[in-house]
Amino acid sequence: MKTYKAIIRISLRKGILDVQGKTVENGLRSIGFNNISNVRIGRIVELNVEAEDKTAANNIVADACKKLIANPIIEDFAVEIEDAK
Amino acid sequence: MKTYKAIIRISLRKGILDVQGKTVENGLRSIGFNNISNVRIGRIVELNVEAEDKTAANNIVADACKKLIANPIIEDFAVEIEDAK
Repeated sequence: MKTYKAIIRISLRKGILDVQGKTVENGLRSIGFNNISNVRIGRIVELNVEAEDKTAANNIVADACKKLIANPIIEDFAVEIEDAK
Repeated sequence: MKTYKAIIRISLRKGILDVQGKTVENGLRSIGFNNISNVRIGRIVELNVEAEDKTAANNIVADACKKLIANPIIEDFAVEIEDAK
């Protein structure tokens, strides 16, 4: 078993209204940032995973994303696996 | 003025307890993911910004991060500017 580092980028699916992003955008406008638009907010999750190889690590993390980390109904996720430092 | 796309990665500063990450880690353990550890959760903010050039765009976004998007007391942020598609 080897330890890998996984980086998971989670974003709202296209077409899903980003309420948090809209709120930040309105907040920015209210303090004078008029040249900022289209704010979208996602999450980035980093974790260590023990697995036989990179493929196995990727499968474990994708499974964890579907079951708990992300909400596949409204979110897309992308998993990146690298060797842990 | 040109439109640039900014990608901002926000993470908790080292040494700050990641309560959300710990909760996700415990949740994963409770459903059988015993090989996942060290879960850290950050945010990724994407937005469009109008500016004269890349440097100006970077300055506007860094300013917006300090004033509203991030919490500089407990969070680090990294700004990346690219040409909008």
